[in-house]
Amino acid sequence: MESGAGAGSVEIGIIGTGLIGASLVEALKACGAARRIHVLEPSIDHLSAVRERHPDLAVAGDVEALSGCDFVFVCSPPHAVAGYVLSLSGARSVVIDVASVKASIVAAVAAGGGNPRFVPGHPLSGGTSSGPAEACADIITRRPFVLCPTEQTDAAALHEAEVLLRRIGAATTIVEADAHDRIMALLSHVPHLIAFSLVEQLAALPEAERAVALQLMPNSFASVTHFALSDPVMWADIFAQNKAAIAAAADQLDRSNKALLAGGPELLQGLRTLREGLKSG
Amino acid sequence: MESGAGAGSVEIGIIGTGLIGASLVEALKACGAARRIHVLEPSIDHLSAVRERHPDLAVAGDVEALSGCDFVFVCSPPHAVAGYVLSLSGARSVVIDVASVKASIVAAVAAGGGNPRFVPGHPLSGGTSSGPAEACADIITRRPFVLCPTEQTDAAALHEAEVLLRRIGAATTIVEADAHDRIMALLSHVPHLIAFSLVEQLAALPEAERAVALQLMPNSFASVTHFALSDPVMWADIFAQNKAAIAAAADQLDRSNKALLAGGPELLQGLRTLREGLKSG
Repeated sequence: MESGAGAGSVEIGIIGTGLIGASLVEALKACGAARRIHVLEPSIDHLSAVRERHPDLAVAGDVEALSGCDFVFVCSPPHAVAGYVLSLSGARSVVIDVASVKASIVAAVAAGGGNPRFVPGHPLSGGTSSGPAEACADIITRRPFVLCPTEQTDAAALHEAEVLLRRIGAATTIVEADAHDRIMALLSHVPHLIAFSLVEQLAALPEAERAVALQLMPNSFASVTHFALSDPVMWADIFAQNKAAIAAAADQLDRSNKALLAGGPELLQGLRTLREGLKSG
Repeated sequence: MESGAGAGSVEIGIIGTGLIGASLVEALKACGAARRIHVLEPSIDHLSAVRERHPDLAVAGDVEALSGCDFVFVCSPPHAVAGYVLSLSGARSVVIDVASVKASIVAAVAAGGGNPRFVPGHPLSGGTSSGPAEACADIITRRPFVLCPTEQTDAAALHEAEVLLRRIGAATTIVEADAHDRIMALLSHVPHLIAFSLVEQLAALPEAERAVALQLMPNSFASVTHFALSDPVMWADIFAQNKAAIAAAADQLDRSNKALLAGGPELLQGLRTLREGLKSG
């Protein structure tokens, strides 16, 4: 293992250097919190990309090599998170994941024997890019970072996670895992599902109508389908991991669509006023 | 009637000076096609706004005052279009409307006795603003302007409409009215419906969850709901006028959502590739 020496006091491991993992490297280096950052990355391409930018990163050969770290961020695909968290259950490390789904991971960790120093997390990174090439500290800093501790979570581990994340610049906030998944089903997972579905409907048009559609292409369709540019492997994983909550939100959307189609301008006016109140976009 | 003299050779009437009508004024003046532009606008506020910008506009007191125009653009709310088109059925004017729905208007005009010089139209203006304040020639120029002539449409009237619109700078394209409404249901009406529905679902969350949702607010939700900032009066009208096609597209969306939730990454990868191929966004 190479040494990646820095000014900070903690050793940090990062499993998976896709967009989020590589952005954590940027954010950690920018704030100077780490004495050393170790990365574990099965993809040669991702590893080369992140080490080209940061030659001082230490490369871990397996998850056991990270067991001496103060913190390990698990930035793997959602379905692989629980396995890594359980592999580190005997270690001293505070283990934080970054998956967009939480309840299924919490349940899988508990079913596998638990890890009291596991702090389930979710940074609201909010883009369509993936992979380390577009990594950027701001994807983590200046954005909310949800933490979903359970009754099994060690209070000291949670506190240490909060202190580190705030030092990085993330806005930590605590949300219960089931509530997180319900809220994200509505706010993020269904919007992504719709984006993919509408692209599918466009593709399914008769050829002559599809040609007209591509020629006309209203801004509203482009806006609603923008997030279909997201990583399909990760999103298939998220859909599978949070299927019940997403299906419930999608059913509610269908009921709402039917009700609004029969509604009048007063109803839409109220909704527009609510939309005006949102912070972004 | 005041005179609004210009260098062009034709007299043009504009009924309704909201965003589209007022943008047509801008586009017509920019290309110099009109000798005179007459406006008919029931709202004192809209009329004042557009005349403050263009004091040379002629003000019509009623629709009959426009019957001597070479062209009349009907830029009223969709439900009022057919009435104006029929009022001008004895006039020499080529009558072009700009509503986002076409089949219901074509049917209402036919049921009312028809107007062979009516050329059903739809400029793809594509924003969320309304009213004359944000009027701009580019909302009409450099964008597609769909024309939906029927078997009753006079060929000379269609040709005259195309020549004028191309002189303005719009990209005219001919689409059959039912096909237009099906395509717009998918490309524009359902995206707007979804935007309003998701805002409604956010509003319906239990208060504690709504507070968390507002704090987290992912970019995907902001992007998908952006078009809920659109004019609710116009959109209630569009939903009512194209209800069957929108309901069909919304049902198909629901079926597609269910299928994608059960699908894998290969399916989503194919859809992402299709999305990458779209022109905008």
